[in-house]
Amino acid sequence: MYASWVTRTAAALLIGNELLSGKVAEANLIVLARRLRTLGVDLRRVVMVQDDVEVIAGEVRSLAASHDWLFTSGGVGPTHDDVTVIAVARAFGVEVVRSSELEAMIRAHYGERTTEGHLWMADMPKGASLEVSDEVRWPTIRIENVWLLPGIPEVFRMKLPVATRPLEGGDAPFVSRAVYTKMDEGDLRRLLDRVVAAFPGVDVGSYPKWMDPRYKTKITFDGRDAAKVDAARDVFLSDLPPGEPQPDLGEG
Amino acid sequence: MYASWVTRTAAALLIGNELLSGKVAEANLIVLARRLRTLGVDLRRVVMVQDDVEVIAGEVRSLAASHDWLFTSGGVGPTHDDVTVIAVARAFGVEVVRSSELEAMIRAHYGERTTEGHLWMADMPKGASLEVSDEVRWPTIRIENVWLLPGIPEVFRMKLPVATRPLEGGDAPFVSRAVYTKMDEGDLRRLLDRVVAAFPGVDVGSYPKWMDPRYKTKITFDGRDAAKVDAARDVFLSDLPPGEPQPDLGEG
Repeated sequence: MYASWVTRTAAALLIGNELLSGKVAEANLIVLARRLRTLGVDLRRVVMVQDDVEVIAGEVRSLAASHDWLFTSGGVGPTHDDVTVIAVARAFGVEVVRSSELEAMIRAHYGERTTEGHLWMADMPKGASLEVSDEVRWPTIRIENVWLLPGIPEVFRMKLPVATRPLEGGDAPFVSRAVYTKMDEGDLRRLLDRVVAAFPGVDVGSYPKWMDPRYKTKITFDGRDAAKVDAARDVFLSDLPPGEPQPDLGEG
Repeated sequence: MYASWVTRTAAALLIGNELLSGKVAEANLIVLARRLRTLGVDLRRVVMVQDDVEVIAGEVRSLAASHDWLFTSGGVGPTHDDVTVIAVARAFGVEVVRSSELEAMIRAHYGERTTEGHLWMADMPKGASLEVSDEVRWPTIRIENVWLLPGIPEVFRMKLPVATRPLEGGDAPFVSRAVYTKMDEGDLRRLLDRVVAAFPGVDVGSYPKWMDPRYKTKITFDGRDAAKVDAARDVFLSDLPPGEPQPDLGEG
């Protein structure tokens, strides 16, 4: 019998020359991925592109159309290389408009120091909404199923709860079990094939660890049906030779 | 006058359910990006997908056709979720064949313990070549402009020099200069617009730092022509108000 929920999907678009040139190590994806996982949302695809309006607009169009939600990271600041708002507007075929609400907030914040540069951050795609929560009063721009998050890791983390709030409470969350063994992946192949064939609803992963004296391979069992996930793990455990598994290390 | 070199481009395809579920933090991209930067190669696009043969094959086809080189990371081990070889073969419309050379190496390594699981790692797309160097004797699979690198970070790092060797010595490398300031991006907007307009061959980046007492924004100047890069930086420096810039922190 198949589960009654419909899996919600998501994609991420990570924007910035600095990520592709290796100047800055991307740091937001892991936070988004873990949050979506907790919410039972399937993050299907991540794309990283440079600060190019046409390229970003093309990706936004394609990713927003093929996933339930799209989260962008980066390119929302006030300088010439911040082109995400323009690109998202182009993807949706709308103009860029200045939000009087954002403009008022920016003027209140910067006072007499306010420059046209600062006000650039008051621009948004026409038809977008400004989303806030009790905890995060500075608005996050959303248009249809696309959330525009900032690239600065600290601010991305602050705003993420607002952008993922509509996803709360929808799906059965994923459950995950792990088994650690000193067998290598080649040895495990046959045992894994058996459990994969017997439990089609369970995602079985196999992750070799490089030169760790405690174990060679971590096997994971993931799914939304905890009873099936546990059953898959137990069948696998019962197939292991004496001396296995190794102690649970509780790594992720 | 335009430069005489032709920019070589690259893409990366990062493969694995564990990356998208947040179980494992992706760790290979930054190493690849920095290496390509050093070689003067423009890394244009990065895509991350799950362990799905059709999805991977589609991305390989598209990314290999639109970039000079494609580097894949992950999915080359011996278990059911390692489908990169199958997917790359499908992308090129060729069969998967067992390499007698790889099979002999695997049998020599595992001896009597060799399983069909281990030998799965001897499979490659028909027509692929096995690339080695004096330092890295275990072969890396390449087919046309696509290099199949492993996901395990330590092994990825060992093999990367082999996969990027053909790129050595081709282009003028990028040079990069940085200026640190306590101005915020809104204040800098006008100064940056001026230097961006005056130096079309120089990529000017602006990166705000969150709550760092030493500076607020790092400005970078990148390009292949060191004289132009320096000139852009110098024009920017001459526009800064008294008290700026801040000391060079030498961060990346």
